[in-house]
Amino acid sequence: VPTDATHAPGLKSWVQGANAPGCDFPIQNLPHGVFSPAGASPRGGIAIGDQVLDVAAAVAAGKLRGAAAEAAAAPSLNGLMAMGRGAALEIRAAVSALLAEGAEPLPHLLHPISAVTMHLPTTVRNFSDFMASRPHCYRLGVKRDANNPLPPAFHHLPVAYHSRASSVRVSGTPLRRPWGQYPKGDSVVFAPTEAMDFELELAVWIAGENELGSPTPISLADSRLFGFGLLNDWSVRDVQRYEMPPLGPFLGKSVMTAVSPWVITAAAMEPFMVAQPPREEGDPPCPAHLASTRPDALNLQMRAAILTPKLRQAGAAPHIVTDTPFAPMSWTPAQMVAHHTSNGCNLLPGDLLGSGTVSGPEDGQEACIAELLLRGPMQFPNGETRRFLEDGDEVVFTAQASAPGATTIGFGECRGEVIPAHASVT
Amino acid sequence: VPTDATHAPGLKSWVQGANAPGCDFPIQNLPHGVFSPAGASPRGGIAIGDQVLDVAAAVAAGKLRGAAAEAAAAPSLNGLMAMGRGAALEIRAAVSALLAEGAEPLPHLLHPISAVTMHLPTTVRNFSDFMASRPHCYRLGVKRDANNPLPPAFHHLPVAYHSRASSVRVSGTPLRRPWGQYPKGDSVVFAPTEAMDFELELAVWIAGENELGSPTPISLADSRLFGFGLLNDWSVRDVQRYEMPPLGPFLGKSVMTAVSPWVITAAAMEPFMVAQPPREEGDPPCPAHLASTRPDALNLQMRAAILTPKLRQAGAAPHIVTDTPFAPMSWTPAQMVAHHTSNGCNLLPGDLLGSGTVSGPEDGQEACIAELLLRGPMQFPNGETRRFLEDGDEVVFTAQASAPGATTIGFGECRGEVIPAHASVT
Repeated sequence: VPTDATHAPGLKSWVQGANAPGCDFPIQNLPHGVFSPAGASPRGGIAIGDQVLDVAAAVAAGKLRGAAAEAAAAPSLNGLMAMGRGAALEIRAAVSALLAEGAEPLPHLLHPISAVTMHLPTTVRNFSDFMASRPHCYRLGVKRDANNPLPPAFHHLPVAYHSRASSVRVSGTPLRRPWGQYPKGDSVVFAPTEAMDFELELAVWIAGENELGSPTPISLADSRLFGFGLLNDWSVRDVQRYEMPPLGPFLGKSVMTAVSPWVITAAAMEPFMVAQPPREEGDPPCPAHLASTRPDALNLQMRAAILTPKLRQAGAAPHIVTDTPFAPMSWTPAQMVAHHTSNGCNLLPGDLLGSGTVSGPEDGQEACIAELLLRGPMQFPNGETRRFLEDGDEVVFTAQASAPGATTIGFGECRGEVIPAHASVT
Repeated sequence: VPTDATHAPGLKSWVQGANAPGCDFPIQNLPHGVFSPAGASPRGGIAIGDQVLDVAAAVAAGKLRGAAAEAAAAPSLNGLMAMGRGAALEIRAAVSALLAEGAEPLPHLLHPISAVTMHLPTTVRNFSDFMASRPHCYRLGVKRDANNPLPPAFHHLPVAYHSRASSVRVSGTPLRRPWGQYPKGDSVVFAPTEAMDFELELAVWIAGENELGSPTPISLADSRLFGFGLLNDWSVRDVQRYEMPPLGPFLGKSVMTAVSPWVITAAAMEPFMVAQPPREEGDPPCPAHLASTRPDALNLQMRAAILTPKLRQAGAAPHIVTDTPFAPMSWTPAQMVAHHTSNGCNLLPGDLLGSGTVSGPEDGQEACIAELLLRGPMQFPNGETRRFLEDGDEVVFTAQASAPGATTIGFGECRGEVIPAHASVT
C-alpha cells in the first residue's frame, strides 16, 4: 500500500485536539469541507482535531499557495474536484506541513468545529445510488421471490439507479415526514408515511470529468474517486414499495438524502484500501471491463444509531442499531465508476455516488430498519421499541477506518431528526 | 381559454418568414432558446420565422428593457425560469410589439436560424422522466404480465423515475452507440447494443422553485410550467431490460437524452390547452391532491421520423413512423409537478421533466421502436426494413399545436444520428 510521510503514525499536530486518542480528525486525515464561521460567508476548510482550518484565510495569509489551495478555499469544492486527485494530494502535503507539531502554530487560522455552520461540500449536479451489498438485496428480495432473491444482474454488474440531486442536504438538516401514496387496507391512501427508514451508505465524491461518450476504464477508475463520506439515503418504505414496479424508486427516495460534511480524501484512505473480497462460489467471473487488480475495497467500519426523544431527555447516547464493515461489499467504488461510465455517461466533478445500504450478513449488520425488522421490532436500552422511525427520532451515522500500523481516522457524523409531517398538502 | 392580443390569428410580423403558412415560429409562438452567432458567444434568443431575434443585442440597443429581458438574454435560461411564468409573459408582450407588422423593422437584431449554433436552453440540474401513456405501458407490459400489463400504481399516480441530468444534450448531438451488458445466447455479454431505440416525449421546463419540504399543490402546479419542447429519451433496450429489476432503468437511459432547442412557453400554448380526457372506465377516482379543474392537457400532434443513410443519399425526407396526439395522455404536466413535489421534493428552475413516450392506442401512434416492432419490422418506402436503429440512422421529431381560430404553432425539431460504437471500452 503506497503511503507517504503524511500518513506516518508518529506524526502529531500543534492542534492538541488532533492528537487525542479516538479523534476522528488526526493530522493523518485532513478532510475537506465547506463551512461558515459565525456571521461570515461560506468558504473551504480542513478539519483538524476539534478545529477547522480556514483555508481561505490561510491562502489570504500566504500560508497556502497555488490553484489547488485556492480551489479548496472556495464556497463549494466542485472546482477542487475538477482538478482531480492530484490537487488534493498537493494540498495534503502542504497542510500536513503547516499543521505538524514543530511548525509555527497559527491559531488565528482555526475555528472550533462546534462554532461553525457546515454546508454541502459541492453543488451536487448528479446523484446515483448503487445497491452493492448482497445481504441487503437478499434480505429485502426474499419477500419478492424466496427462490431468487437477488436481482438477475447483481452477479454481473453493480446495480444502481439515478436518484435525486436537488434534495441532497448536509448532515443536521431535519427530515420532514413526507406524505405519499401507498396501499392501506383495501385502498390506496395519500397520507403521511408510516414507514420512515434510513439507509447507511458510503458517499463517493467524483473527481474530474469524462466527456459524454468516453467511458472511464476500470484501469483509471480510481483516479475519479476524490473522496468519501457518510450518506443517509432516507427511504419511505410504504411509498417506495408501491411505486417501484417497473421504473424503480422515485418519491420514496427524493424526500432528502443527507451526507456528512467532511470529504475524506482518497489520499487519506490509502492505508485502509484492501483487496476486494473473492467472488462468491457459483458466481460468474467478474466481467473484464470491471476487473481490477488494485486494492479497491475500503477497510471501514460503519455504525448507525438512533436517539429517541426519551433517550435524549435522559441524557443517554444514541443507541447503536447497526455496526457493519464496508470491505465485504460485492462491488467497489472503482467498479461503480467503471460501470456508470461504461455506456459513455459522463460523471461531473462533485457528482455524488451512494454505495447502497452497507449491510453485512450477521445480526446487527443490517444497515436499514426494513432489514432490522426481519428480527422483530427494534429494542432500546430504556425498554422502548420501534418499528419504523417516529417523530423526534434522530439517526446518527459514524465510521472509522483502521489498519495495522496506521493511525485510525474517522468520518465525523451524518445525523438528522425526523420532524412531524405537514397537516395537509393540498 | 384566456388569450390576449399576442395570440390574435390576424397578427403578422415584419419578419416575412414568420408569416409563411406552416411556419413553426409565427409571431404567435415566440419561443426562447440559447444560440451562438457564427464565431460569437452564446446568448438568449427568440425564434421568429426562419430568424432568431438576438435578445442580448435587443437589450443592448435599448429595444427590450427590464430584469426579465436581461434574464432572457443570458447564455442559459435558468435565471429567466427562476423568475416564473410572469417574466415570460412580460417579454412576450414586449417582443410581440417589437416584431409586429407596422413596427420599425430591426433586421440588424436578427440572425438566420440556419446560420447559428443552438445550445441547451438551461443548465439542467435535474431530469425526471414520467410514463404517462397507457398504451405505451400496456404494449410493453403485456410481455411482463399479460393479465396485468399496467404498473399497479399507474391508476393512482403518474409513474416516474429519476433520470440522468449530465447527459442531456441539445438536438443535433450525435448518439454514440453504447456498449452495455445484456443476455445473449446462454451468457451475459458486454458489447455494443443491438437494440438502440428512441422514445418520443414532451419536454417540460420548470419555472420557479419550491423549498425542500414544501409541496407545490395541484392548484398552483401550472405556475411551475415555464414551457415545453420535444425530448428524445434515447433508450438501450437490451441493456435496459436486463438492468431494470428492481431499481429501474440506469445505463439504458443515461447514454444521452436530447431536447429540442426552442422552449415553447406556456403562454404560447394557452390557446391549445384542453381538458384532460375522462378517466378510463373502471379506474379509481383521481386522488384529490392530483385533481385539477383547469384545462391542463396539451392539444399537440407529435411525429417521429427516421432518415436512413439510403434515404439520405436519395435525397428523400425522413420517413414518418409515429404520428400521435399528446392530449389523451393519462396524466398532465401539472399533475406531474404536483405528484413530484407531493413528498416535499424541490424542483429547481430549469429542471427538466419528460412526459414519457407519447404513444396512442392506434397503429402508427406507437412512439418508440419497441412498440412499433410488435407489428413486425419497420418498413421504409425504399424497401428497407429495420428492427432497431442502425448506424447512420437519424431520428427526427416534430410537433404542431393547433386549435380552431388559433394560428398553428410548431416546436421545431429534435434530431440526432446514431454513430458507430467505439472499437473497445477497456
